[in-house]
Amino acid sequence: MISRTMAADLPRHVGEHVRIAGWVHRLRVLKSVSFLVVRDRSGLAQVVLTGPLDVGEETVVEVHGLVTANDRAPGGAEVTGPRITVLATSTPPPFDLYRPTVTATLPTILDNAAVALRHPRLRAPFEVSAASVAGFRAALRERGSTEIHTPKIVGSATESGASVFGVDYFGTPAFLAQSPQLFKQAMVGVFERVHEVGPVFRAEPHDTTRHLAQYTSLDAELGFVADHRDVMALLRAAVAGMVAAVAQDAPAAVALLGAALPDVPAQIPEIHFTDAQALLARHTDTDPRGEPDLAPAHERWLSAWAEREHGSEFLFVTGYPMVKRPFYTHPDPDRPESSNSFDLLFRGLELVTGGQRLHRHADYVAALERRGEDPAAHQDHLDVFARGMPPHGGFAIGLERWTARLLGLDNVRRAALFPRDRHRLHP
Amino acid sequence: MISRTMAADLPRHVGEHVRIAGWVHRLRVLKSVSFLVVRDRSGLAQVVLTGPLDVGEETVVEVHGLVTANDRAPGGAEVTGPRITVLATSTPPPFDLYRPTVTATLPTILDNAAVALRHPRLRAPFEVSAASVAGFRAALRERGSTEIHTPKIVGSATESGASVFGVDYFGTPAFLAQSPQLFKQAMVGVFERVHEVGPVFRAEPHDTTRHLAQYTSLDAELGFVADHRDVMALLRAAVAGMVAAVAQDAPAAVALLGAALPDVPAQIPEIHFTDAQALLARHTDTDPRGEPDLAPAHERWLSAWAEREHGSEFLFVTGYPMVKRPFYTHPDPDRPESSNSFDLLFRGLELVTGGQRLHRHADYVAALERRGEDPAAHQDHLDVFARGMPPHGGFAIGLERWTARLLGLDNVRRAALFPRDRHRLHP
Repeated sequence: MISRTMAADLPRHVGEHVRIAGWVHRLRVLKSVSFLVVRDRSGLAQVVLTGPLDVGEETVVEVHGLVTANDRAPGGAEVTGPRITVLATSTPPPFDLYRPTVTATLPTILDNAAVALRHPRLRAPFEVSAASVAGFRAALRERGSTEIHTPKIVGSATESGASVFGVDYFGTPAFLAQSPQLFKQAMVGVFERVHEVGPVFRAEPHDTTRHLAQYTSLDAELGFVADHRDVMALLRAAVAGMVAAVAQDAPAAVALLGAALPDVPAQIPEIHFTDAQALLARHTDTDPRGEPDLAPAHERWLSAWAEREHGSEFLFVTGYPMVKRPFYTHPDPDRPESSNSFDLLFRGLELVTGGQRLHRHADYVAALERRGEDPAAHQDHLDVFARGMPPHGGFAIGLERWTARLLGLDNVRRAALFPRDRHRLHP
Repeated sequence: MISRTMAADLPRHVGEHVRIAGWVHRLRVLKSVSFLVVRDRSGLAQVVLTGPLDVGEETVVEVHGLVTANDRAPGGAEVTGPRITVLATSTPPPFDLYRPTVTATLPTILDNAAVALRHPRLRAPFEVSAASVAGFRAALRERGSTEIHTPKIVGSATESGASVFGVDYFGTPAFLAQSPQLFKQAMVGVFERVHEVGPVFRAEPHDTTRHLAQYTSLDAELGFVADHRDVMALLRAAVAGMVAAVAQDAPAAVALLGAALPDVPAQIPEIHFTDAQALLARHTDTDPRGEPDLAPAHERWLSAWAEREHGSEFLFVTGYPMVKRPFYTHPDPDRPESSNSFDLLFRGLELVTGGQRLHRHADYVAALERRGEDPAAHQDHLDVFARGMPPHGGFAIGLERWTARLLGLDNVRRAALFPRDRHRLHP
């Protein structure tokens, strides 16, 4: 059997007999001739037929034929004199995959993911996701970080705020991990710098365009930091690596969706939480001072301000009040009510949260007691910090949220192959 | 603050004032002088003290001092005139981390993972794992494969044989995915070639040295194959990529454990299941003909045979009986009781299972009915194959098992940071 030629390579094979294979993207029957458009992972190929053919869209076909130059064909070449073999038939797709735009609703797309995602516009976000993850890992590895894999079934909940899924673990109640937080911190004691790309689980009761019950978390943790600024520098490198990888690996996907990749400044501008509040009080008709967090409208305003003032689509907001941050957050030594933590805003939205963590056992016990929590409930977490842990910090990027924001998608579900939410457990 | 110098780089800084940081690996107090050995992610540094110092092992310290040449110091340089700051204290480790060998039992190691894995011999397997995963991904990406992330919470069990963990999904019974099988097959329809590195979950009732309740699965699936041999060629490339990455990224870890990396032949030898049985009948005192599977002793014998006859530590066994393979397995068109599937044996053990899958909807329905299973119970799986799926196949490599086998570890738990099994849910 002659080896398969990809659709995009046809122009380089004019005059040769080839074998192509793919899906029936469209069949256009004219009076004396028909055009069969075959789609493979590289693009589209036009096959010219003079006889009849009865195949539905999404039928899988193999075509032997002669590559012939034709200016009006995609890429300037088409397959003529074809011999066509049907490899598998298909029921009619739920909407026309050959049309440039998608009019199907999101539920139709999600219910039919196995076929809907073949539409180039619906597939594109996942090419961007794959490139982003590769860029994330490459940036971390270059900086001496070790990739780790941690348990997703845990004996106790790490993030007190979020809701957890219960698992029956050989008759013992257990939970799905809401983050690898404890484990990545513990592994700083072994490898100093670690990263993990894996699923995290949140039993989100809310049905929003931004939340999933399972998402892919890009986690990093870094030891021997001076403070949260070392973590911010690592995050900046990771984001720059992600954007560069998308530009290199998935430019067609970005262009197809009409998105623009951001510049990542060598130094992302930053503003302290209290300065951000003062700015908002001075320039908007709200006065958020005294509030412990920023509202979405405030994040949008600050993001626009950073673009205006600093020419940056990214903005670090630092020094969030301790009261709104997890118990493992390190306070600002000079202003203990502020934290050594940050959010990274991107195009109006919080994209990443991170910061320096507590690293001394006694500080953990005190922090939990101050919050009225029982240290015994965090035994696994606390034990690690009796073992000699260096000053450290880290961050987590939600992959689906990243991709959606980068490409301007209206729903994070468009960046998840088979999203899981309160109402969706299939397919 | 001057930037941190890594222990391994000290010889390049003789005559300079530096800052190093790490863990107290050992403190040796002699009559007139003491030696403090500091461990960081790069190695060990010797610090010479003339005054007293009271720090326990695993204390986290920062040391400022002068780098001085000394032939008897590790690497030929040591830090003199030090100023030492304690960053965090530690309780005494459960065993001596500074001794070259580890005498602690496996339960002691696992109970104290956060500190035990700092021992270079216990950390080494994870450096090999990280390199292996990077090599796997690189090999797949080079061959046009797209990385995907699929749901770990599913509405129905995919692998009928294995036991599943139940999850309470917003009040609906659900399961932890035993493999990404359905999803990776479905995504062949979108991307043609896909791979995923992620956790899979098996409620293994057995407590063996080879089984975990959660492990990391390196999955790949490939469309438009002629048969299982195309899948075997991809697997060969993936394994070669993994070995090459380990050789490049983690040679010190391999050497420390006294392991030898295998050669991966350009063409891994293969033998059909029935020929393997005939060979065993002829050359061993058992006659396995008529049995539907190979016993562990048979795998060991065949592996030794391949090494003897073909000089290969790898051996493909093809054509396993359909009756022992999952319902989605493609039969051998010429011998329908045999399958187009394979196992890859490595150093006496089955390392990978894979094969060609069914790709036509009608074949799935018939296969399930032949097994007396209700096609309706596999609705999600079946729907995909009504959508036009090309001939395809794939494989899955268990990362922990791979690492353990490569390094000759006696228990797969030594290749899992925080293993989960019937008896272990903490830390």
